[in-house]
Amino acid sequence: MSGNTYGRLFTLTTFGESHGKALGAIVDGCPPGLALTEADLQADLNRRKPGTSKHTTQRREPDEVRILSGVFEGRTTGTPIGLLIENTDQRSKDYSNIADTYRPAHADYAYDQKYGFRDYRGGGRSSARETAMRVAAGAIAKKYLAETFGIRIQGFLSQLGPIKLGCPDPSAIETNAFFCGDPEQLVALDEYMTQLRREENSVGAEVSVHATGMIPGWGEPIFDRIDAEIAHAMMSINAVKGVEIGDGFDVVTQKGTEHRDEMTTEGFLSNHAGGIVGGITTGQDVLVRIALKPTSSITTPGRSINRQGENMDVVTKGRHDPCVGIRAVPIAEAMLALVLMDHCLRHRAQNQGVVPPIPPIPGQAPVK
Amino acid sequence: MSGNTYGRLFTLTTFGESHGKALGAIVDGCPPGLALTEADLQADLNRRKPGTSKHTTQRREPDEVRILSGVFEGRTTGTPIGLLIENTDQRSKDYSNIADTYRPAHADYAYDQKYGFRDYRGGGRSSARETAMRVAAGAIAKKYLAETFGIRIQGFLSQLGPIKLGCPDPSAIETNAFFCGDPEQLVALDEYMTQLRREENSVGAEVSVHATGMIPGWGEPIFDRIDAEIAHAMMSINAVKGVEIGDGFDVVTQKGTEHRDEMTTEGFLSNHAGGIVGGITTGQDVLVRIALKPTSSITTPGRSINRQGENMDVVTKGRHDPCVGIRAVPIAEAMLALVLMDHCLRHRAQNQGVVPPIPPIPGQAPVK
Amino acid sequence: MSGNTYGRLFTLTTFGESHGKALGAIVDGCPPGLALTEADLQADLNRRKPGTSKHTTQRREPDEVRILSGVFEGRTTGTPIGLLIENTDQRSKDYSNIADTYRPAHADYAYDQKYGFRDYRGGGRSSARETAMRVAAGAIAKKYLAETFGIRIQGFLSQLGPIKLGCPDPSAIETNAFFCGDPEQLVALDEYMTQLRREENSVGAEVSVHATGMIPGWGEPIFDRIDAEIAHAMMSINAVKGVEIGDGFDVVTQKGTEHRDEMTTEGFLSNHAGGIVGGITTGQDVLVRIALKPTSSITTPGRSINRQGENMDVVTKGRHDPCVGIRAVPIAEAMLALVLMDHCLRHRAQNQGVVPPIPPIPGQAPVK
Amino acid sequence: MSGNTYGRLFTLTTFGESHGKALGAIVDGCPPGLALTEADLQADLNRRKPGTSKHTTQRREPDEVRILSGVFEGRTTGTPIGLLIENTDQRSKDYSNIADTYRPAHADYAYDQKYGFRDYRGGGRSSARETAMRVAAGAIAKKYLAETFGIRIQGFLSQLGPIKLGCPDPSAIETNAFFCGDPEQLVALDEYMTQLRREENSVGAEVSVHATGMIPGWGEPIFDRIDAEIAHAMMSINAVKGVEIGDGFDVVTQKGTEHRDEMTTEGFLSNHAGGIVGGITTGQDVLVRIALKPTSSITTPGRSINRQGENMDVVTKGRHDPCVGIRAVPIAEAMLALVLMDHCLRHRAQNQGVVPPIPPIPGQAPVK
Repeated sequence: MSGNTYGRLFTLTTFGESHGKALGAIVDGCPPGLALTEADLQADLNRRKPGTSKHTTQRREPDEVRILSGVFEGRTTGTPIGLLIENTDQRSKDYSNIADTYRPAHADYAYDQKYGFRDYRGGGRSSARETAMRVAAGAIAKKYLAETFGIRIQGFLSQLGPIKLGCPDPSAIETNAFFCGDPEQLVALDEYMTQLRREENSVGAEVSVHATGMIPGWGEPIFDRIDAEIAHAMMSINAVKGVEIGDGFDVVTQKGTEHRDEMTTEGFLSNHAGGIVGGITTGQDVLVRIALKPTSSITTPGRSINRQGENMDVVTKGRHDPCVGIRAVPIAEAMLALVLMDHCLRHRAQNQGVVPPIPPIPGQAPVK
Repeated sequence: MSGNTYGRLFTLTTFGESHGKALGAIVDGCPPGLALTEADLQADLNRRKPGTSKHTTQRREPDEVRILSGVFEGRTTGTPIGLLIENTDQRSKDYSNIADTYRPAHADYAYDQKYGFRDYRGGGRSSARETAMRVAAGAIAKKYLAETFGIRIQGFLSQLGPIKLGCPDPSAIETNAFFCGDPEQLVALDEYMTQLRREENSVGAEVSVHATGMIPGWGEPIFDRIDAEIAHAMMSINAVKGVEIGDGFDVVTQKGTEHRDEMTTEGFLSNHAGGIVGGITTGQDVLVRIALKPTSSITTPGRSINRQGENMDVVTKGRHDPCVGIRAVPIAEAMLALVLMDHCLRHRAQNQGVVPPIPPIPGQAPVK
Repeated sequence: MSGNTYGRLFTLTTFGESHGKALGAIVDGCPPGLALTEADLQADLNRRKPGTSKHTTQRREPDEVRILSGVFEGRTTGTPIGLLIENTDQRSKDYSNIADTYRPAHADYAYDQKYGFRDYRGGGRSSARETAMRVAAGAIAKKYLAETFGIRIQGFLSQLGPIKLGCPDPSAIETNAFFCGDPEQLVALDEYMTQLRREENSVGAEVSVHATGMIPGWGEPIFDRIDAEIAHAMMSINAVKGVEIGDGFDVVTQKGTEHRDEMTTEGFLSNHAGGIVGGITTGQDVLVRIALKPTSSITTPGRSINRQGENMDVVTKGRHDPCVGIRAVPIAEAMLALVLMDHCLRHRAQNQGVVPPIPPIPGQAPVK
Repeated sequence: MSGNTYGRLFTLTTFGESHGKALGAIVDGCPPGLALTEADLQADLNRRKPGTSKHTTQRREPDEVRILSGVFEGRTTGTPIGLLIENTDQRSKDYSNIADTYRPAHADYAYDQKYGFRDYRGGGRSSARETAMRVAAGAIAKKYLAETFGIRIQGFLSQLGPIKLGCPDPSAIETNAFFCGDPEQLVALDEYMTQLRREENSVGAEVSVHATGMIPGWGEPIFDRIDAEIAHAMMSINAVKGVEIGDGFDVVTQKGTEHRDEMTTEGFLSNHAGGIVGGITTGQDVLVRIALKPTSSITTPGRSINRQGENMDVVTKGRHDPCVGIRAVPIAEAMLALVLMDHCLRHRAQNQGVVPPIPPIPGQAPVK
């Protein structure tokens, strides 16, 4: 494959540029019989959609997805599911001025070095606009995992710039534009973002994603460990520069006695591993964290070069999120859903009929 | 594939358990004409080999690799390269006592949940012993990249438990058993490890790997971004729980003006991106960091369960590294080499004859 | 992958049912810089299109393809090419009567055994309607191969029922609705087809496809021999039951002295091998033949069963080609183009810079 | 992948040249719990082994296979199975004389055009010696299919040169060196082969392979139709130039009323389709035929060129089968077993829990 397909058995192949005619995808390998409508996909697409708050880009992208195949009489047939979103709000004029320049920290220079030629409008293929199709496909996987196993996938913003965010109230996550589960911090977030916009600057963020109700035994050692696939999927999201499973980089200073998750017949006594050991799920919650760099498109001038090989200063106009991390929450959920779905099918292929030697213990031991 | 092949065009497929008859691998897709001998592979295998210091396991594994095919008259033919290491020092008796128990933080429980049945000797397939074949294959990729492009890949220990390590003297890395480029810290490392062994405990570590002399334009957006593949490859190494590219999680608190790597005709002015933007190499050094958890095999008793579903305490005997991170250095180098090699071939397939619009600028601007 | 993607580096992924909303495809891996417009695809689509003669189905399918991405300013960018054909003429009522029946020799029964549930309208995914997307994608490959190497791919009808057809006049192929290069037989073909329609029956056919101007060295032994991939691609076309390369089944009775293609510095003295030896192209013309079964949809009643497990007689109404083999000509050309394109890229990946020991000899020796 | 791996979920990756140190393979994706010993593999290896009759090469190849991993306490563990056969009888001197020449109909010229350099000893990688590993891996698949589903795979010689062979007595197939199920023809076969050897010539053959006890619903439309994968697998065998499913090329002259396999609740009334419709198994016997070209290695001189680009006559010495088709029988069985095994797992992945609308009907209707 040449890079635009994700997965082995449950596969997502996408196309589309930021300012092209449309975004599209083909989801192949979905088991037959799943009840599916466009509304199932639209819900997550709306969570990702820009323009929902004054802190995200004001571009209007209705992002209305159509299911073109693979669903008959309201259920998936097992044949490929074609998805399409026609592009509407395309202000190419906003971008024409940078056709010949390489904006610092953008993919402009790298794309030209690779392809020799690029669609510069709105970043073309390198635009985060592409992630709409990941969210649509992820919604299919989420629905299958929830209905078949009761697996739930929830992401939230765990840090924005200097502001660390816990998740004491998960029920709050979907009630604010920050996907924040720490309501007491909402005012601070709002003030920080307002100040950031005044500075004409951007900032990084950390997003956490959890999967609960997990099934043990998913993952394909040694190279396709499920944590390796999660790392692949997460790092494939625009702007992501780091991925952690469970305690992540905190394990560097941990002792063996501290890190290991002890077990009893009532369940695991801790979850430092983030639900994955040896590249295989244990049945504990899967815990993932990702780091997203600050938006590259800012109006503060920066030093760069142009297509003619001359030095110049670049100012990026247009409408951009000052913190791309916020809208990355539903995208990260979608990528985790795609990984779990693919490994559900891969595990099923090889291991049907093999009885575990003991029934799985609970993911967590009851709190005493 | 069912998990034991890495790569798309330059592929590594491996087999072998810790205490099986042999470890083996097939490297497919190596271009013809590369001068290759077993000595080229043995050098890196010896760097990984245990028993080289009092701080690593005292198991004796000569790890002598044989090339069984794909090389004729001293050069690769383009046909698959078969590699074999016969196992010698197999003390199964050390392990028989844990045949029925699930050691906390080991893959025992997860493997039984997945396969229903496992080779428990020395961890079987989940043992780090498997990584010997990664190192052997990585040595082939390293040699091709060095001879064809002048690309060099070097890893070093950047943190051991609480001890942070810089790399002021790269020439020192290969002169000590810690792969440490910070000679002033060697005494502290030695003392820390001695104390750790007294405690019968283990500790985590951080390893850094750099690729220099890079070529711009490698990587296959959107899902096979080269940083996504690096994350996959690194997270597939035993005990790894986190991966960072460039500034990694530090980007969370960075502003856009701070993070972006500005460019001039003389080169890039910084390298926060770690040499990868938009999932494509820029020609700057590729900078990767990984976090490794503390060794799970420690002699301090831990709570667990057995195959019969009973609670019990587990003590892991046998000969283990108190810090698996140390010997992970050549393994991480090998995995980075495999990713770069695969993407070199993938880029070559699609982009031959496409002239970049401008000659690449230097990876770094000359220091003023 | 779950079956709807063809190729490793130049990949075609398709979706769409006969009577769904649309047919679509994603072509990934096309090198950047190829001049491409919808007209380039439409030409071959029109050759496949039904309703062009009284001997093919009278369904009206404008089959107008749109390119939705991957092309900018008239050239491919190297990013995925999205293709879409909206379905227009959907007479579902023609098919509703067989919703619960398994038409003999159709995929109805097999699909229900596999998926438990199917889109029965016009055969759903199993309809030859799907091949429109193969033809569109094949046109891209054909154009790249022609412009880059001068490779030409031409198919023709080499047998229809009992009527064997040579190709004495290739220039005639595109001048008649039979893709027949044997003009003297056109009257016989017309009479045979007229009689067949009176009988309310259908008949099989043989199609030949040749690629000229070939490059030696393409193909990936041992499993991805280029002849093996051609066999795969051809047998994936609806109704194909046999594939031959070069002399095909005639080799069974040949002696070694008779079959071997001798070589001189002026070229090969024969082409029994069909341009492929050891799974690698020799530079000779690639010669392929396929056998297509008679159309299953005929109005003569046949014995079958229904969804309720009862015996019944089935009559297939609707509008069908009495010989599917005729319209298979452009489809077979497209599949051969996809195989050659994929192997061109695969060869390029591994073998760049390797100089052949001698310049290739001509595909054929000059006629003396 | 670069050509030396077959399969998606049950994968075979092989290495080894005719006169290298060893042949090896990795079988990945075998479900855990299958009882497996080296004897299970050796049985089929011995059927393929040369030197078993005066009509096959007299090379002595004990072909003793070792299982190096993936089996513990007599059962597969689900981890990769490493296989190794050390080469013993290597008479390189027999071949050194053709180091610089391109034998007509051999892969010599094509390999040099592809790789620029080759291991010429005994044909190197292009030698049929490589197929030993296919047979060993196929034996694993055969055993799983037989024990899990009762599927049996049997091949036989259906034509040798001009001598057409039926299979009136399948029990005779394993009792003669021709894999012939038509005992009355054994004398004719013996005389023909003796005459052929006197002529210092070779001849082609046709081999048939049948799978009985099939399960309906296997196959992945549209590109991975199971017949397409069978065609791929069969055409990847050395010397194969044609593949047929069911009636194969006979369908060209069949009418629709004649070809279609009618169904009743008691079963199918015929099997022209060879057990596959729409690329999916119907539960009928799978019927495959392949055409194998005459051995290229004959001692009758032929015109060719050498590495220096000069015309010359070539005589191929060494020990060769005058009819490679005979020993292809177990190889063809193995390839069919690999295809069925892979599709068994692929089907299982996607379709678990989907109940067919009706219980499958018998593969064949009882004879009345």
